[in-house]
Amino acid sequence: MNFSERAAENLMAIREKKPLIHNITNYVVMNYTANALLAMGASPVMAHAPNEVEDMVSFAGALVLNIGTLTDVWINSMIKAGKKASQLNTPIVLDPVGSGATALRTNSAKQIISDTIITVIRGNASEILSLGDENSKTKGVDTIHSVDEAAEAARNLAEELHTTLAITGPVDLVTDGNRVLRVSNGHPLMAYVTGTGCTATATIGAFLAVESDALSATATALAFFGLAGEIAAETASAPGTFMIKLLDALYTITPGQLKEQCRIEGE
Amino acid sequence: MNFSERAAENLMAIREKKPLIHNITNYVVMNYTANALLAMGASPVMAHAPNEVEDMVSFAGALVLNIGTLTDVWINSMIKAGKKASQLNTPIVLDPVGSGATALRTNSAKQIISDTIITVIRGNASEILSLGDENSKTKGVDTIHSVDEAAEAARNLAEELHTTLAITGPVDLVTDGNRVLRVSNGHPLMAYVTGTGCTATATIGAFLAVESDALSATATALAFFGLAGEIAAETASAPGTFMIKLLDALYTITPGQLKEQCRIEGE
Amino acid sequence: MNFSERAAENLMAIREKKPLIHNITNYVVMNYTANALLAMGASPVMAHAPNEVEDMVSFAGALVLNIGTLTDVWINSMIKAGKKASQLNTPIVLDPVGSGATALRTNSAKQIISDTIITVIRGNASEILSLGDENSKTKGVDTIHSVDEAAEAARNLAEELHTTLAITGPVDLVTDGNRVLRVSNGHPLMAYVTGTGCTATATIGAFLAVESDALSATATALAFFGLAGEIAAETASAPGTFMIKLLDALYTITPGQLKEQCRIEGE
Repeated sequence: MNFSERAAENLMAIREKKPLIHNITNYVVMNYTANALLAMGASPVMAHAPNEVEDMVSFAGALVLNIGTLTDVWINSMIKAGKKASQLNTPIVLDPVGSGATALRTNSAKQIISDTIITVIRGNASEILSLGDENSKTKGVDTIHSVDEAAEAARNLAEELHTTLAITGPVDLVTDGNRVLRVSNGHPLMAYVTGTGCTATATIGAFLAVESDALSATATALAFFGLAGEIAAETASAPGTFMIKLLDALYTITPGQLKEQCRIEGE
Repeated sequence: MNFSERAAENLMAIREKKPLIHNITNYVVMNYTANALLAMGASPVMAHAPNEVEDMVSFAGALVLNIGTLTDVWINSMIKAGKKASQLNTPIVLDPVGSGATALRTNSAKQIISDTIITVIRGNASEILSLGDENSKTKGVDTIHSVDEAAEAARNLAEELHTTLAITGPVDLVTDGNRVLRVSNGHPLMAYVTGTGCTATATIGAFLAVESDALSATATALAFFGLAGEIAAETASAPGTFMIKLLDALYTITPGQLKEQCRIEGE
Repeated sequence: MNFSERAAENLMAIREKKPLIHNITNYVVMNYTANALLAMGASPVMAHAPNEVEDMVSFAGALVLNIGTLTDVWINSMIKAGKKASQLNTPIVLDPVGSGATALRTNSAKQIISDTIITVIRGNASEILSLGDENSKTKGVDTIHSVDEAAEAARNLAEELHTTLAITGPVDLVTDGNRVLRVSNGHPLMAYVTGTGCTATATIGAFLAVESDALSATATALAFFGLAGEIAAETASAPGTFMIKLLDALYTITPGQLKEQCRIEGE
């Protein structure tokens, strides 16, 4: 089965099973992320209290961790939930927002990665490449000069971290350390709406809840989310209307439409 | 006076008096709830600091407590504000989000109910029925097989808790332990927008601020909010546009229109 | 150069330089504020952890402090970030939401003002006038009976606090204790959307990041934000659609259009 077919099947499965997606995420995007998950057919829950995250994650099809407005207390809850999810083999997707920008963010992201079994990490190039060991062979983001170098760096880092990585941008790179996929769905207006990256991460969570192949789940999720941006841009030319039409598209895109219009290329 | 007339009068009173509604609610819905309250004509304030909630609630026409993203610290603030509101005879509406799903949520909701004088509790059937005493005659949600059984269980629980209960769904049930009302305004797209339940709760808060009969205030609030969903659905067929048009409708619905189109049936 | 030309130049500079605006703000408006900053061309970041705010603010072109959902912990982070910004000569804009309503808010706002070097404070008349010393010559808000009295009170208070003040309302007053400007852009629907005041404050932050004259940066920011409201109202007559069209307008307004349509009058 090719990725277009998988994308369609995953979307169909989300709408049928309505998987519960447990999010411990940042204040800025909670509302938009929850609305996006509902629109695509999943069931979001936001819960961060240290004395309930283990209970909550045990009901969930996937756990989404996002450090956008982190504090030490929230990171502890993320790790607690993540350890429980790891025990239960529940997939975890991490969004290391701002890793590389401040020591707190870089250290917190690395701590989460070290203490839990992360299935997928999604970020931009500088966030992802900040996660490598200081002595690793992974190049820093300032030494990356081409898409091919980025792909090679990401592949090495995925291998080092034993996870699947998604570096999103005009073209998204997805790699499990072995294969590398490129997803070219998307639209430039997405960069003018806060939390589109975070919402892409949550979408990966929903797809992980219905497909066990992390590479395929990640690439098909990004194609779906990017396609929603393309469709939104057909009737919106400014960010306010665009962000609302994007939610609409997550609801209206049919599996058949996704199969036709998703653009995933791989090796 | 019948409920249609009361609905119209309550809406008119909210727009004239612009009651201050003090919300201690969850992160996900704060923005949408505040916008909904503003759109309908009320004055929202969100404040949760333990060293100011008593001051703030003393200015308010109603207090809205919502445990959607609870922690122990927030619950303590809710109880502190609730005790002050109880002393002042200020109406309190509680939204026990997720009660029954985790022990923290069930216990926190019960603690708030025990420590303060709650005027109205709004939730879905499983949330509401989780609030009964373990030894109570109230049936659990899994033993409810018909609308009539749900009404009977709700009536018993309202009597036990000395409060008014609103169980919302395709048809909303409202009972004070004596009378039972059914509100059939609403639209299925409301389930695809995060926080519509929480916003219904906040709307009840606004109506409680202008009408002292809790049963009538609750039913007319739910009819108004449901009608806004119906009107939104006339020009929106997907959740993003729908949630924006719903805010528009809260602003544009006239008292006369509400009187004509509200659907409240009772005993 | 007159203010119309400065407004156009500031908007152009924001779009070219995309200044990072560090916000420590309230939960209700974080999403809308971030989207507004992105739409106008700036780069928002929300970060409040005490162990990263000093790092984060050192990258920023301006710091926005907003006490809307304050607690003592958040105020401490605001002061920590504010002290660092003061050391670095990074402009700070303060939004004293609810100052005058509760002791916590008034005291917290005064503490921030005393511990850091605030460039601009924006609020409504009662918030701003609550910031004066109890023994000051500044009149209380209940003694203000005309626009001229408000201007005189604001000018005295700006002098006392060594800062620039913006009192927003149907006509905005901006004063540095010496000059007084009046900005008349805006639309009544702005009062029906939560966080328009807070977003005006964040817009001032973006303009401060590109213009060192605080009076001019503030007035041109308010003219730009008010114009966005006017343009939104051309195609929206209710608050939901209006708040989305306002974000659109922040993106679509050209420097030339702003130059033509901004209405700033001064002495």
